[in-house]
Amino acid sequence: MASADGSKLWGGRFVGDTDPIMEKFNASIAYDKRMWDADIRGSKAYAKALEKAKLVTAEEKDNILHGMDQIHDEWAKGVFEVKPGDEDIHTANERRLKELIGEPAGKLHTGRSRNDQVVTDMRLWLRDAISILKGNALQLITTMVERAAVEIDVLFPGYTHMQRAQPIRWSHWILSHAVALSRDVEQLQEINRRVNVLPLGSGAIAGTPFNIDREMLRQELAFDDISINSMDATGQRDFIAEFLFWASLCLTHLSKMAEDLMLYSTKEFSFLTLSDAYSTGSSLMPQKKNADSLELIRSKAGRVFGRCAGFLMTLKGLPSTYNKDLQEDKEAMFDCFDTVHAVLQVTTGVVSTLKINPSVMEAALSPDMLATDLAYYLVRKGVSTKYPLKPGICVFVCSSQSWCGLNLNCFCVTIVVLNYLALSRQVPFRDAHGISGKAVFLAESKSIPLNQLTVEDLRTASPLFSSDVSAVWDYSSSVEQYSAPGGTAKSSVAAQVEHMRTWLKKQVQ
Amino acid sequence: MASADGSKLWGGRFVGDTDPIMEKFNASIAYDKRMWDADIRGSKAYAKALEKAKLVTAEEKDNILHGMDQIHDEWAKGVFEVKPGDEDIHTANERRLKELIGEPAGKLHTGRSRNDQVVTDMRLWLRDAISILKGNALQLITTMVERAAVEIDVLFPGYTHMQRAQPIRWSHWILSHAVALSRDVEQLQEINRRVNVLPLGSGAIAGTPFNIDREMLRQELAFDDISINSMDATGQRDFIAEFLFWASLCLTHLSKMAEDLMLYSTKEFSFLTLSDAYSTGSSLMPQKKNADSLELIRSKAGRVFGRCAGFLMTLKGLPSTYNKDLQEDKEAMFDCFDTVHAVLQVTTGVVSTLKINPSVMEAALSPDMLATDLAYYLVRKGVSTKYPLKPGICVFVCSSQSWCGLNLNCFCVTIVVLNYLALSRQVPFRDAHGISGKAVFLAESKSIPLNQLTVEDLRTASPLFSSDVSAVWDYSSSVEQYSAPGGTAKSSVAAQVEHMRTWLKKQVQ
Amino acid sequence: MASADGSKLWGGRFVGDTDPIMEKFNASIAYDKRMWDADIRGSKAYAKALEKAKLVTAEEKDNILHGMDQIHDEWAKGVFEVKPGDEDIHTANERRLKELIGEPAGKLHTGRSRNDQVVTDMRLWLRDAISILKGNALQLITTMVERAAVEIDVLFPGYTHMQRAQPIRWSHWILSHAVALSRDVEQLQEINRRVNVLPLGSGAIAGTPFNIDREMLRQELAFDDISINSMDATGQRDFIAEFLFWASLCLTHLSKMAEDLMLYSTKEFSFLTLSDAYSTGSSLMPQKKNADSLELIRSKAGRVFGRCAGFLMTLKGLPSTYNKDLQEDKEAMFDCFDTVHAVLQVTTGVVSTLKINPSVMEAALSPDMLATDLAYYLVRKGVSTKYPLKPGICVFVCSSQSWCGLNLNCFCVTIVVLNYLALSRQVPFRDAHGISGKAVFLAESKSIPLNQLTVEDLRTASPLFSSDVSAVWDYSSSVEQYSAPGGTAKSSVAAQVEHMRTWLKKQVQ
Amino acid sequence: MASADGSKLWGGRFVGDTDPIMEKFNASIAYDKRMWDADIRGSKAYAKALEKAKLVTAEEKDNILHGMDQIHDEWAKGVFEVKPGDEDIHTANERRLKELIGEPAGKLHTGRSRNDQVVTDMRLWLRDAISILKGNALQLITTMVERAAVEIDVLFPGYTHMQRAQPIRWSHWILSHAVALSRDVEQLQEINRRVNVLPLGSGAIAGTPFNIDREMLRQELAFDDISINSMDATGQRDFIAEFLFWASLCLTHLSKMAEDLMLYSTKEFSFLTLSDAYSTGSSLMPQKKNADSLELIRSKAGRVFGRCAGFLMTLKGLPSTYNKDLQEDKEAMFDCFDTVHAVLQVTTGVVSTLKINPSVMEAALSPDMLATDLAYYLVRKGVSTKYPLKPGICVFVCSSQSWCGLNLNCFCVTIVVLNYLALSRQVPFRDAHGISGKAVFLAESKSIPLNQLTVEDLRTASPLFSSDVSAVWDYSSSVEQYSAPGGTAKSSVAAQVEHMRTWLKKQVQ
Repeated sequence: MASADGSKLWGGRFVGDTDPIMEKFNASIAYDKRMWDADIRGSKAYAKALEKAKLVTAEEKDNILHGMDQIHDEWAKGVFEVKPGDEDIHTANERRLKELIGEPAGKLHTGRSRNDQVVTDMRLWLRDAISILKGNALQLITTMVERAAVEIDVLFPGYTHMQRAQPIRWSHWILSHAVALSRDVEQLQEINRRVNVLPLGSGAIAGTPFNIDREMLRQELAFDDISINSMDATGQRDFIAEFLFWASLCLTHLSKMAEDLMLYSTKEFSFLTLSDAYSTGSSLMPQKKNADSLELIRSKAGRVFGRCAGFLMTLKGLPSTYNKDLQEDKEAMFDCFDTVHAVLQVTTGVVSTLKINPSVMEAALSPDMLATDLAYYLVRKGVSTKYPLKPGICVFVCSSQSWCGLNLNCFCVTIVVLNYLALSRQVPFRDAHGISGKAVFLAESKSIPLNQLTVEDLRTASPLFSSDVSAVWDYSSSVEQYSAPGGTAKSSVAAQVEHMRTWLKKQVQ
Repeated sequence: MASADGSKLWGGRFVGDTDPIMEKFNASIAYDKRMWDADIRGSKAYAKALEKAKLVTAEEKDNILHGMDQIHDEWAKGVFEVKPGDEDIHTANERRLKELIGEPAGKLHTGRSRNDQVVTDMRLWLRDAISILKGNALQLITTMVERAAVEIDVLFPGYTHMQRAQPIRWSHWILSHAVALSRDVEQLQEINRRVNVLPLGSGAIAGTPFNIDREMLRQELAFDDISINSMDATGQRDFIAEFLFWASLCLTHLSKMAEDLMLYSTKEFSFLTLSDAYSTGSSLMPQKKNADSLELIRSKAGRVFGRCAGFLMTLKGLPSTYNKDLQEDKEAMFDCFDTVHAVLQVTTGVVSTLKINPSVMEAALSPDMLATDLAYYLVRKGVSTKYPLKPGICVFVCSSQSWCGLNLNCFCVTIVVLNYLALSRQVPFRDAHGISGKAVFLAESKSIPLNQLTVEDLRTASPLFSSDVSAVWDYSSSVEQYSAPGGTAKSSVAAQVEHMRTWLKKQVQ
Repeated sequence: MASADGSKLWGGRFVGDTDPIMEKFNASIAYDKRMWDADIRGSKAYAKALEKAKLVTAEEKDNILHGMDQIHDEWAKGVFEVKPGDEDIHTANERRLKELIGEPAGKLHTGRSRNDQVVTDMRLWLRDAISILKGNALQLITTMVERAAVEIDVLFPGYTHMQRAQPIRWSHWILSHAVALSRDVEQLQEINRRVNVLPLGSGAIAGTPFNIDREMLRQELAFDDISINSMDATGQRDFIAEFLFWASLCLTHLSKMAEDLMLYSTKEFSFLTLSDAYSTGSSLMPQKKNADSLELIRSKAGRVFGRCAGFLMTLKGLPSTYNKDLQEDKEAMFDCFDTVHAVLQVTTGVVSTLKINPSVMEAALSPDMLATDLAYYLVRKGVSTKYPLKPGICVFVCSSQSWCGLNLNCFCVTIVVLNYLALSRQVPFRDAHGISGKAVFLAESKSIPLNQLTVEDLRTASPLFSSDVSAVWDYSSSVEQYSAPGGTAKSSVAAQVEHMRTWLKKQVQ
Repeated sequence: MASADGSKLWGGRFVGDTDPIMEKFNASIAYDKRMWDADIRGSKAYAKALEKAKLVTAEEKDNILHGMDQIHDEWAKGVFEVKPGDEDIHTANERRLKELIGEPAGKLHTGRSRNDQVVTDMRLWLRDAISILKGNALQLITTMVERAAVEIDVLFPGYTHMQRAQPIRWSHWILSHAVALSRDVEQLQEINRRVNVLPLGSGAIAGTPFNIDREMLRQELAFDDISINSMDATGQRDFIAEFLFWASLCLTHLSKMAEDLMLYSTKEFSFLTLSDAYSTGSSLMPQKKNADSLELIRSKAGRVFGRCAGFLMTLKGLPSTYNKDLQEDKEAMFDCFDTVHAVLQVTTGVVSTLKINPSVMEAALSPDMLATDLAYYLVRKGVSTKYPLKPGICVFVCSSQSWCGLNLNCFCVTIVVLNYLALSRQVPFRDAHGISGKAVFLAESKSIPLNQLTVEDLRTASPLFSSDVSAVWDYSSSVEQYSAPGGTAKSSVAAQVEHMRTWLKKQVQ
């Protein structure tokens, strides 16, 4: 034998007729047995198609179905015995079927190839997995939306670049993450449409040569569609790649939320406290309470993306149709499902049980966060405050009130002109921004909060400041400015809550 | 100054008030100027919204629009001058506007932040880019489908695991890749729905405090929808991440096709020859004609996935809202667009100009590729050939033809029973597979092609073989078996062509 | 022509004899011109080897060298003109050489292939680039080490899990990052050893057929070694892959430091303030001072890793020797060099100019951070404090002092025994940890700092507490405990500074 | 309780005091139990250090050592029982120790933290793993080198761009891959130097506060060095990242070799046949013999790089010191070890048992592969063949031989001049390349092999061709030209074999 000769001439590991390391390397039963149920469902449907194609008799079909049901029971009860030689779930189930029903088992694979069988099983399995993940995600979103509804009155600093930016509602923050997750759900459903396509009946590469009714198979297995081309059907794993990337993006979203929550739960921020169920202590430091749950959530984005990266790299440059390289698909799929499944549930637990500290949150608001409002004050110091009459009203007044000697038309025109002038002489935002910046600098120089500057102080920056500037220093009023759709005003946040509730209802229909 | 002191105490690069390396590091104008048109469109729309909100006058708005048109011309003509201090396209355009129209330029940014401005620009740009790529992809698919229609009669070996598997149609191979690309187009459209959402009016984080009509902005800029939450709107780049992954998967598809074509164009396969326009020579070896185009296509899957991986890694663990890290979004987006844009066009060129060598392709078919057919021959050696009458017909014959003394019913029942027995005694595929395997082994031992085995030879493997086995050795008949949807029979491939033509028509409506 | 015919039959982009998109796609001159100097150096050395091999005359060699010097000047002055048809730097320089010196230019490529030429150029270029990066890294490390030396007395909270853990020295933190960077430098040097290997003389694949003296080439170009196998030499890009990963790990280190600094520069931590040179403002919010430099540093880890991931994916599954796919190597190499080059310099600027706020840092220390010390107090409540005599001393005392009537031996034995008993009855750390945990809980229940618990309070947790426990509540003493190598005691940190200074000196020798 | 309240108000999963999903999510015992031996070794060494520091008595130390030995036995025999609450291997072993020896077990963790314990365990484990992988790699390289030595006379086509390039030795190909693997071994050893550094004694973050002798620990555990800074020691996982990348690059090398072997084992190339032990059949097609082993090898490059990518992404942007995110390190480490371990062994099996088909390999050589030689023929048509005298010899002849009437000096000068002229009129390679290209074209036009062109045919391309051109058409002579170091001549390949043998010897010393 070559190997023996080879060994003599140039060494190498001893190799007999089989190499146990190669056999283990080749086998997938250790993980693909998770698809036992999908494999049974696929085979049962195929047995029916075989009968319709007159490749098995009704009795044989019944035997196969019955045998498969027995195998199902064995797996369900955890008593199915994997034997040496069962290299994958497909051979294991078929081997067992033969033990149970004898010869008809050998007909089950007529016109079927492992190439179309395995990808059918994966699609059945992933379809169920997606359904579960969708449920997990919806539960998390629901929790977030309802929490946002309840805590809508809590204000705290909004950050950009990790620096305090503007006062916002805590619920606005919650919803910003819920909205991202709702996109994940939508994308997951789109992927599911591409998952839920029947490849069975594609054979190894060329199709099926028998009268297998693929439409019947589709209905039997509740697929939405059948695959268009047998080579593509057996050789593509796009649906896996898409799922792995979906998991990556979804967990990247949660890594972002976890990062925020970690910041907020530091001693320095102290905005919130995690439930003990989601914290752990230190083996060394008795006082520590670590947000391990959040760190795990954050870390998993890397893990699942690694699976995505690995699988894409495996796919790159492969020739068409089935190559054994594709066997990398299953562990990646299972691991990403398990990871996202756990992360979504733990996140739901974390979010539903954390306690916020509203007083600390509001105390963290500082007058400098209203520097933009100070600029807006100047921008608004034009028409709106000084000449509130609008031309339309003015013309109405003019035309209806001709009782006095004054030329009201003239007055009206004046108002319009003043309005116009005011608008055009209104401080451009760029200048207002600069003036506010000067005020910030002045306060810093004096080591006082921005709102402690006197009107005189402010006038050194711009003569437009007057005593009404005091109204700026109100956080509640500040947030209420942002009432346009998507903003942080109460009405706008409430509208977001309603929007999400409506969206959620649609998802479960 | 700190830096000076610092320098004395602990060294470090000399640093004055500004660090030129930092300024260059921070600036994005070198690449984001590609969005000049999007930036102008966004600003023009915003100017209209400002007028509606009475933050600029009609005249100011007209000035802004007019100024923006002038800037547009400058960019279009390539005469726009980027000046020091123009750190990005937004500041460059605004700076120029001020030069052109003076003070009203300073009002344009009222209530707008670079945070919502930049993401609006990106969405406008990417929307156009997606439209271009969709066009490129459709052109490639059309070329493939029409080529498949023309060359439908060419047979060649289908490979799995890079080993000859079964005879297939060349057009079946073409379509397998076209079908994958059609999924790319569908996915691109789904992404586009998430791209085509207006973020403008989200401010820096909290929303817009003025009466900016976001619905009007949406219509003005032809977005499908407006963003739901201002923090999400300004801080998310999911649409970029999705686009980068889309590019990766699309080019992974093309890397697969390129790999096949490279194999087929080796001397050893010689199935096809690339056009000179897509080949290059060697600086050393005069005889070389390298398929550089295909190698470049294959390589680009790595490049774009690298962009995707890099950007996901940048996103991982970022806190909410805008962080400067997001600046990595643009180069990745531009590079992936440019790459996919070129690859799709070059692939179209390659596919439309390559010449196939049908005689070599068909000569590569070998009898061992019909070993599966040999097994199928045995499987079919049952009912179908021997007792073609179906019970229904039989009963009809029996009941209508009682003119003879024979008990036709009995004859009919016999047929039914024989049919049944044949079906149940039909060789199970598993056994037929084994028998065919023995025949393959026998032929190898005799060093003759599989079809040179005599019926006697074959009978040593199974007594079921008879002289009609000679019909198996016909490649054309072989492919015609695969007439189920998705198979390689002529009717099935023609149906795939029609399916794709219909699909293509829908895409351009 | 095929394309024309093809176009008629199945569409496709119009394609003439050349496809301009393909030409652009294929060309690398746009970026590989950065290697102009390396290419000239390589060609000059090769001209000398050609002369030695009698493939050019001395005069021809001189002409080539002179011509190459002229080309060098043109590039250096920025007047070299790239012409259409110059697809890469190698053809550009050779084309120009022919213009300058005529026919002998055509001899320069004798026995050389672009395959060995391009990889020689890359190695020359990267060797220089590595030298620059090493210098940048050493400057940063020097700055950090010297800053650590100066600010060694500043204490602040050490964090694990982003939660306050134990008091540490600020310099200990600085050094933790400097040590990581020193590993980067060491790894870079190891990579350089694999970069600095001469491939020239490997031809396209088989080697050089002429009497080219590769050892002479090696010396001429100052390589450490020559490549062992011509196929490996021309087809491998491991040194690029290694460099890209090095860049990724180095920037991952800096992303970690940047993350810390960002936390420390939030309003909530307020431990330090970045120099204005490394901060930027907001277009909307006048008070904002964003740590853009740190965010950019953090983001670049993703960017360079993307390059690494992309290149590895491109390499995966490529067949041996040169394939055009390898052209992806150069942009990745240049981009990673540029990025790391900028990041290291900006980081040096940031680190050398930031101002720390020692009073805020020390004020952030809180008694609960000494909970571990409280446990240690209990652990130490054994031998060490009560029976300080060691057996050795005791025996000495006993044997030398027999002047009195007391049985000193007996006393000594008693001490030994007590020591022994104390040690064995010493509170196990696990128990001490639990007791300290109870104290923490007690303080929390009372809403008082841990150090405000009375000795009576503490005794409810353990009777071992006595008044000397007050010594625990001293942050300075606490850090001084950690005097083992690598710890945060002053002596230990000073030793780290010295270690690093010695290491730095070795690097520049 | 918060969760209960929360549940009522905003839903969420039901959560009691503990969340079983969180507990499972948090626990690492399922995989980190693989480090049981390393954990025991670390703890035993630490017990000794505790005794030296007088934190445990000699008796306690002995108890601990004895208990640990018992635990070792339990693990080795597979009877160690993991209990609920054993969240990781460290707690499991300590819990068991307490069961076995009681209170002294509680002293083992004095001054130690899980932070330094876990990373010590990982370094011990990985050090062993690296040693195993080095052995596997050396075995593979040895097999390759010895096979190359035996089969040195086999010629076959060398390919670039997957196109036939030049004739080379099969052993040259083997060695090109062996050389790449030898770099992997060298890099692995460099990594090992960074792995083999003791972190124990770093505590959680600040160091160890007791008199723990870290130098003694280092010796006890056979580390090369001790860590410099406790924060770095506990918070860095660079050695893991480096290992993961190493695995990626190593398997990328093997993916390249596998790709070559797959090509060579296609029907179309037929250069070699895999042993049955490394091939598998098809469930559908009886004739198939698939190179599954090679496909698996190729695919694993993606898998391990995915681990590397995932871990780098997890590391990106983490703050300093230990964060739970780091828990992703272990599964990645184990999986990459297992994968590379299997791949190296399977590759050794494949390489040592495959059979080459030398006659097919040599038959694949074709005259067009000598087109470069044809160009070289022209280049050489100068001095070397015609005027072999060198000036030095000539001058010697002239000055010593003045016996005749001829003016020998004149003759000598003539020779020199002729030599010079010949050299300078020698066909430049660029032109020779063009001429050879014309010959290739001519042969293609005539549909004859390049070597069937007559001298007259060739003279239409260049008048320099003469009848001696026939010597070009010899593949053996062709390869023998490449005798420079690294080339494919027999002497050069033999030198490579010797180089590698010497290198291999050094590795096992």
